[in-house]
Amino acid sequence: MRSAVLTEPGQFELEERERPDPGPEDVLVAMGDVGICGSDVHYYEHGRIGDYVVEDPLVLGHESAGEVVEVGEAVTGLEPGDRVALEPGVPCRRCAHCKRGEYHLCEDVRFMATPPHDGAFAEYVAWPADFAYELPGDVSTIEGALCEPLSVGIHACRRGDVGPGDTVVITGAGPIGLLAMEAARAAGATDVVVSDVVAEKVEFAVERGADLGVDVTERDLEAAVDEYTDGAGADVVIEASGAEPSVRSTIDVVRRGGTVVLVGLGDEAEVPFDVLEVIDNELDVHGSFRYANTYDAAVDLLAEGVDVAGIVDFEAPLADVEDAFRRAMEPDVVKGVITLD
Amino acid sequence: MRSAVLTEPGQFELEERERPDPGPEDVLVAMGDVGICGSDVHYYEHGRIGDYVVEDPLVLGHESAGEVVEVGEAVTGLEPGDRVALEPGVPCRRCAHCKRGEYHLCEDVRFMATPPHDGAFAEYVAWPADFAYELPGDVSTIEGALCEPLSVGIHACRRGDVGPGDTVVITGAGPIGLLAMEAARAAGATDVVVSDVVAEKVEFAVERGADLGVDVTERDLEAAVDEYTDGAGADVVIEASGAEPSVRSTIDVVRRGGTVVLVGLGDEAEVPFDVLEVIDNELDVHGSFRYANTYDAAVDLLAEGVDVAGIVDFEAPLADVEDAFRRAMEPDVVKGVITLD
Amino acid sequence: MRSAVLTEPGQFELEERERPDPGPEDVLVAMGDVGICGSDVHYYEHGRIGDYVVEDPLVLGHESAGEVVEVGEAVTGLEPGDRVALEPGVPCRRCAHCKRGEYHLCEDVRFMATPPHDGAFAEYVAWPADFAYELPGDVSTIEGALCEPLSVGIHACRRGDVGPGDTVVITGAGPIGLLAMEAARAAGATDVVVSDVVAEKVEFAVERGADLGVDVTERDLEAAVDEYTDGAGADVVIEASGAEPSVRSTIDVVRRGGTVVLVGLGDEAEVPFDVLEVIDNELDVHGSFRYANTYDAAVDLLAEGVDVAGIVDFEAPLADVEDAFRRAMEPDVVKGVITLD
Amino acid sequence: MRSAVLTEPGQFELEERERPDPGPEDVLVAMGDVGICGSDVHYYEHGRIGDYVVEDPLVLGHESAGEVVEVGEAVTGLEPGDRVALEPGVPCRRCAHCKRGEYHLCEDVRFMATPPHDGAFAEYVAWPADFAYELPGDVSTIEGALCEPLSVGIHACRRGDVGPGDTVVITGAGPIGLLAMEAARAAGATDVVVSDVVAEKVEFAVERGADLGVDVTERDLEAAVDEYTDGAGADVVIEASGAEPSVRSTIDVVRRGGTVVLVGLGDEAEVPFDVLEVIDNELDVHGSFRYANTYDAAVDLLAEGVDVAGIVDFEAPLADVEDAFRRAMEPDVVKGVITLD
Repeated sequence: MRSAVLTEPGQFELEERERPDPGPEDVLVAMGDVGICGSDVHYYEHGRIGDYVVEDPLVLGHESAGEVVEVGEAVTGLEPGDRVALEPGVPCRRCAHCKRGEYHLCEDVRFMATPPHDGAFAEYVAWPADFAYELPGDVSTIEGALCEPLSVGIHACRRGDVGPGDTVVITGAGPIGLLAMEAARAAGATDVVVSDVVAEKVEFAVERGADLGVDVTERDLEAAVDEYTDGAGADVVIEASGAEPSVRSTIDVVRRGGTVVLVGLGDEAEVPFDVLEVIDNELDVHGSFRYANTYDAAVDLLAEGVDVAGIVDFEAPLADVEDAFRRAMEPDVVKGVITLD
Repeated sequence: MRSAVLTEPGQFELEERERPDPGPEDVLVAMGDVGICGSDVHYYEHGRIGDYVVEDPLVLGHESAGEVVEVGEAVTGLEPGDRVALEPGVPCRRCAHCKRGEYHLCEDVRFMATPPHDGAFAEYVAWPADFAYELPGDVSTIEGALCEPLSVGIHACRRGDVGPGDTVVITGAGPIGLLAMEAARAAGATDVVVSDVVAEKVEFAVERGADLGVDVTERDLEAAVDEYTDGAGADVVIEASGAEPSVRSTIDVVRRGGTVVLVGLGDEAEVPFDVLEVIDNELDVHGSFRYANTYDAAVDLLAEGVDVAGIVDFEAPLADVEDAFRRAMEPDVVKGVITLD
Repeated sequence: MRSAVLTEPGQFELEERERPDPGPEDVLVAMGDVGICGSDVHYYEHGRIGDYVVEDPLVLGHESAGEVVEVGEAVTGLEPGDRVALEPGVPCRRCAHCKRGEYHLCEDVRFMATPPHDGAFAEYVAWPADFAYELPGDVSTIEGALCEPLSVGIHACRRGDVGPGDTVVITGAGPIGLLAMEAARAAGATDVVVSDVVAEKVEFAVERGADLGVDVTERDLEAAVDEYTDGAGADVVIEASGAEPSVRSTIDVVRRGGTVVLVGLGDEAEVPFDVLEVIDNELDVHGSFRYANTYDAAVDLLAEGVDVAGIVDFEAPLADVEDAFRRAMEPDVVKGVITLD
Repeated sequence: MRSAVLTEPGQFELEERERPDPGPEDVLVAMGDVGICGSDVHYYEHGRIGDYVVEDPLVLGHESAGEVVEVGEAVTGLEPGDRVALEPGVPCRRCAHCKRGEYHLCEDVRFMATPPHDGAFAEYVAWPADFAYELPGDVSTIEGALCEPLSVGIHACRRGDVGPGDTVVITGAGPIGLLAMEAARAAGATDVVVSDVVAEKVEFAVERGADLGVDVTERDLEAAVDEYTDGAGADVVIEASGAEPSVRSTIDVVRRGGTVVLVGLGDEAEVPFDVLEVIDNELDVHGSFRYANTYDAAVDLLAEGVDVAGIVDFEAPLADVEDAFRRAMEPDVVKGVITLD
């Protein structure tokens, strides 16, 4: 089968590899669509993310959906022909985290496209059936692939306990910010403010239904939220940019007793944080890492019509993967997708 | 001012009473619309609900909204001309329940239209300003009045922790069931099943967006839910009918580890309940009594376009209150409203 | 190896069986102590519990601890010589319940001594290493075996959210009730009331530290709790008897807004339950089924000195298993233990 | 009546003031014991804490207990002769925070000894009866006064959701750290590590039952916790020192998925915080501000024998208030108390 292999930073090779054999609990999936994530681009550019270094040729891609073509002997509930989204992180199933239902914190998770585990830019992937989620007829494989970033948004909203009537500020209007907005709306948020440093992204967020967009190069976020909420502040702030000024500003825009969810990974580990405000206003600051137990909800929301495909700027065939990655690096591109069939 | 006084069961008198003086923390509200609740009808018919007996002439009505015409000297945030919905239960503010934020459980709550406290079928009501919630321009006073039953629905969904992707079964398609459906949708429920014993009500629920309506005189609810959910059962069941067979059936339609919320008050106190199932399936069975801290969310949802006015069958002037109550007693009527101006 | 096999109701046979081979993820444990649970006695007497029927010879016993004598090749963290308590239910690790951390609700759990799965009245048991919990030096294997009923108590207290300062009523002073008392104390309960129908058991509960014991054949529980709490009622009621009058009384002794936890399995499925009180007082009624994620805490509590061994009335060797079961059936016996070495 | 008035920084005057009249909902309390808090000392030294500036003569003291000598006409449940602890912050009872049960976040709270509100270093205080908690016979007024810092500890443990079996690290062995340890034990923590920069305080914490004391001038906290927990890290870290290095270290000692509670107020608002760790390890960082709904639990714990009086280094009469404050400023003093009778 063909697969796009990152052989060194900035270099993909289309390689013929052996089609994997599904184990007894696995399904073999003919990939349909695979999204290009910021982390894929980061590996492509730098060959590493933090401590994760690409030492051997690596197949990227972890936002994926396709069609089941074969099922292992112990698999029930899925059969060839079913269309599925793949949840890309498979945990050990045995540690305390796994047993507590926080399997995304498992130290031994095998996560697609994180060295040394190959990802999904390939014609076929064998994957545990319980991490393959059937897509109903009205949900496309592009939408299925975007279950992954939507899951990040759903998990962030759960971490922030977003509920009906809430005012939510989302800093960063990339794929995670935009899909966190969808998740927040689904959870009942009635007022959503989105900020970014790129005017086009702010506009796009407003087109997609943000009640207020703030271009923070032009306007102070705290002042904008203050005005919008009559001084009340936001119930929940979801930080989806990773930018230091944005991380710091979360404390200023959240209401007393409110919650800040940190999702966006930036370059700086240490950010000066106003801990006196955290105490005086009794804030909750919650890290949000990937997701767990979100795919069922994500598929349900897609079936209900939540718009995720609208964030896709372009689709490209596997053969054009290198081109696609270069396009994905342009500042105004939100999401590119590799289509395999 | 004119007010409709229940002088004995089945008998209203339109009486001129003195217009109340607002205290320093109160607003005086010229009533706009006041819904007729099942409890109002029950007092009208029977002169009592359980231990609450109408011994002196009583003004009914507790689903109310109107216009502020005067404010007490200590009131800030509201002024004459503001349109407000009134939350009808004012607690003692001092007991352990009040301090814990569960003020609806306060034993000394003063609740409109519950003997001996007068309600809102009157031209003016003086009410603590902090229990008066401003309505934005696009929310009518009819909608404002329906904040009350919508609050019951919001509270029930909170008690059931309804969230994105949930399957919710609602038994009973009266005002509470229908507005619980709106609240469940707002909280992210993607699948809502509604049942009733009246075919027209089931149809109406489906018209209003239920994914499945079940007329339980024709079809077994457990079988219907089983089929709809492929055997999985509902994440949350909201019992809004109070009917014994319905209460009992909740245990059969909820999934293992799921939640049953009991809201509907029936005539029978004791219902045979399958406690072995409660244990074996580790169910949560939660009583849901009125609401607390829901009005802000209710107003936000109305501003967002949640449809509550659509459940109103008729409006009538205060002068026709007795007629209106008789109409409200017809089995296919969902909600009547008394309009005061 | 020797094992005690229930060949038909009322009949054990001591049988030589082949010593099991541990799989790669398993440990082989030389059993030290195995408690006799009420469910074991029930299978012994009746050959069934509800739908679970002993059709083939069955080894009973699921409250067990012993010494590791061999470890599978993939096992880390345990080695021969370690003393461990075994958690008796191993789930599928793949269903939605398992992934959510509620693995005790897994439909495919393999639970010791539940047909067709053999239990621990045997010299050796092979068991997944992640369900074997190391005991520190100051915790005996008898105590380790009692991690199981202590876990039931810990889980019940979690289901009831017992915390510092709480008043807890426990109905039923058998092993579960007594160990739920220990768990409630550990969680901070400052007032514990225990009731039973057997005077000796009530006295024993008081000896073990209950603030008030109520022999319900002599005194009304509601009156006693009312007096003890100055009319306030209990924050949490843990029903550990399964007796119908006791189940019904929980509603009467819990405070407004409080929680009832149902743990005790009785003979009657359907119990008339005062649902109006559940609603009016906004109660939480929580089924509590076995436990999940409790063994680490149980071991920590034992190491801290929580007294569980004090509930053991007698120890007997495996050869005397039939005698031991007959003694365990006497009404004033709380707990018997089979000792294997 | 006599009262100790801070007339300017570093200067107390004993002044005769008029004995206050209790309002209808108040009790008049003859003060028995009043603790000296770090905030009292800070006002004494600097005349301000942040934005709170002592502009007029101010009575300090907010950790207080005494005897009721008079009750307002609307007061029930308390009568002259009752001994009570006073909760020092009385909220507006009307804002959204108050209604949600988080009355400590009320912006209009009247808090003893916070300008312009007088505190409790006086012979008599009139105070709302619902913020006066009766002390049982076996609880002294010194212990009653210490309900206040104990409440800070209880609230911090609630914010961290400390439960049975938890490993808790507490940074800072002053009154808050020491009483947070008591609260953590009461909530079931089985392993408590306490750190400080003063060797005597670390020793004192160990004497009072800490499983491990760490003098961070001698030993790295992360290394110590790592060794103590076999690399697992703490479930909960309670930061009770306010010192920047300590705040930063919390991230290093908490386990993946664990919780950091920030209680200690330091001099620096902005602390560089490792947000990447917060995200990667999905931490919860919770500010903890004062307390709400803790006094009942605090009194229950005192009645149960929780040791708070043991942290008191000295008692002094009101006449010696200035001396007492100077002693309270010595580095090895944990707590001083002014005794009024």
